[in-house]
Amino acid sequence: MSRYLDPRHAGLVPYTPGEQPKDRKFIKLNTNESPFPPSPRVMEAVNRAQVESLKLYSDPDARVLTHAIAARYGLDEEQVIAGNGSDEILAFAFLAFGGSKGAVFPEISYGFYPVFAKLLGVPARSVPLREDFSIDVRDYLTPGENVVIANPNAPTGLALSHAEIETILRAHPDDVVLIDEAYVDFGNESAVCLLPKYGNLLIVQTFSKSRSLAGGRVGFALGSRELIADLQAVRYSFNPYNLGRLPQLAGAAAMEDEAYFRECTGKIVATRERVKAALRGMGCALTDSRSNFLFARLPGVSGARAQAALRERGILVRRFDRPAIADYLRVTVGSDAEMDAFLQAVEEIIEEART
Amino acid sequence: MSRYLDPRHAGLVPYTPGEQPKDRKFIKLNTNESPFPPSPRVMEAVNRAQVESLKLYSDPDARVLTHAIAARYGLDEEQVIAGNGSDEILAFAFLAFGGSKGAVFPEISYGFYPVFAKLLGVPARSVPLREDFSIDVRDYLTPGENVVIANPNAPTGLALSHAEIETILRAHPDDVVLIDEAYVDFGNESAVCLLPKYGNLLIVQTFSKSRSLAGGRVGFALGSRELIADLQAVRYSFNPYNLGRLPQLAGAAAMEDEAYFRECTGKIVATRERVKAALRGMGCALTDSRSNFLFARLPGVSGARAQAALRERGILVRRFDRPAIADYLRVTVGSDAEMDAFLQAVEEIIEEART
Repeated sequence: MSRYLDPRHAGLVPYTPGEQPKDRKFIKLNTNESPFPPSPRVMEAVNRAQVESLKLYSDPDARVLTHAIAARYGLDEEQVIAGNGSDEILAFAFLAFGGSKGAVFPEISYGFYPVFAKLLGVPARSVPLREDFSIDVRDYLTPGENVVIANPNAPTGLALSHAEIETILRAHPDDVVLIDEAYVDFGNESAVCLLPKYGNLLIVQTFSKSRSLAGGRVGFALGSRELIADLQAVRYSFNPYNLGRLPQLAGAAAMEDEAYFRECTGKIVATRERVKAALRGMGCALTDSRSNFLFARLPGVSGARAQAALRERGILVRRFDRPAIADYLRVTVGSDAEMDAFLQAVEEIIEEART
Repeated sequence: MSRYLDPRHAGLVPYTPGEQPKDRKFIKLNTNESPFPPSPRVMEAVNRAQVESLKLYSDPDARVLTHAIAARYGLDEEQVIAGNGSDEILAFAFLAFGGSKGAVFPEISYGFYPVFAKLLGVPARSVPLREDFSIDVRDYLTPGENVVIANPNAPTGLALSHAEIETILRAHPDDVVLIDEAYVDFGNESAVCLLPKYGNLLIVQTFSKSRSLAGGRVGFALGSRELIADLQAVRYSFNPYNLGRLPQLAGAAAMEDEAYFRECTGKIVATRERVKAALRGMGCALTDSRSNFLFARLPGVSGARAQAALRERGILVRRFDRPAIADYLRVTVGSDAEMDAFLQAVEEIIEEART
């Protein structure tokens, strides 16, 4: 880093996104993208006339999009803020509510939380998971710090119940409890139903997984009018035109196509459960993931070896080099054909390790 | 603001973007957009296949775009960073280089600079312009603080020479000198030719004006490898996927169509000079703007009155409610037909004020 960099950023370790190979020959099960294209309505919405209109600024309030989101969740538009991906929304939240107050999150969770905290000067405390990778809510009941929980958690895929989330919310009447629901749409119920009861609840979601728009960069937060107004003030002080015209249209179209959304997420859940059973049958250890990825350990094969052997077979998966989970692979639920190839490869790799 | 907001943001006054009317009946000369659509190559680049591919994440390094920018300016790709609009790049720069060190900028300039400074905890000092709205470089020679200069400046349209910029650069060997060239393409030469000599020079540009992509949200910075690496570290700690697939493609296509760029900017410069002469002929006071807007005062009509009278005639212009410039209008150079309507309206308004 240069001598011009603010010394408060000394030791900054940026987030490492999953590998995005330039040659498209891999079966990509490493970044939790959807195997399905966006809704056909997205292709209609992003048409030539709309591209021509790019000469004009986008609506800084992204009303076409926030309207669609609010309608889908039965909220007022003032309870919705749209972001350039949910990462941007998370960054705005750390910037808005952290700093003077610290944040607590699980030690094994979305790896970006400690990065946001470091960059934005938010004191951070991380809490180990239980042995079975579950979150013990009793670790998150100290008032005076904000709480950030991915639900379901990543990369474990395990979900907290609404009762458990309410326990945290009640312990933090003066703090923000941010529930990151990036993976909620694969068989879980959003905490959005708790919003009327808790003014300190902030829910963050993304279009990258369940709505097939990872490359469109659309995310959003839901919360009380007060929390959303704070985030809007930060957004208008950082990048008011944070969403271009095309992502606003794409996001609105994707949100409005409920039937397609249900079809895609339903298929992914079915495939996930089928692959879970197959992996268990091969002796893999795995969590009961409620997300669009699996978290699994192959019998008799180290995580590093398993990842390399899959890569040799043209399959990319993600692995995190931390002692507690180094032998586990995070495997995106792809199409049935992709998962068949994955299962075939896993079978071969286990067999090779045995002989 | 809510009781959850970090108290360090108390008194935050977000930036106010120019009005974006929802009904499209106005002649919009208030936000410095281009009157021309994006390059036809942009329409080709953003096609149905690309929209389908939105299910996959975008390249976090935006290489298709940074490659096109680097090629255009004769730089290495490591000297280029792309942003979700130039506002995001400016925010990253304030975050990276400010904080411990303050920033100085002209009192009348892009109104976002003090907003970034406030949000990101950067001590800010602003310096009045001369009576004729020009920048006196001698006010920016104190080492120990970063310098931010829009060149040409907004809303005055006046430009510093390269010799003047070099004077500032030499006075600040250990500080960053950020030259915001949002409006450089309308008859000025970029300071990019100074990059080999000055490791402390950071140039910020946008696709919103001269490349007709205001609604596409694409901006970039050019600088030494060291400065760009710092900005990349901040970007990777805030929002690594800050540019979606479509803006990367749109930006690259726009950057590569040099002929269209020259045609559009040439037309705007010609129209600007014609309108300048016409306004002078009607007795208006105006700066020698080198940008895609005019900065003009109507004879015998207050700024507020002139703005309101134009609005009544269906023409939006921008005005800033600060004593030194409250009687001036910032008028985007639109198409010839739009500017004829504007000139006609100005003539009527001056005539009405006289009688």
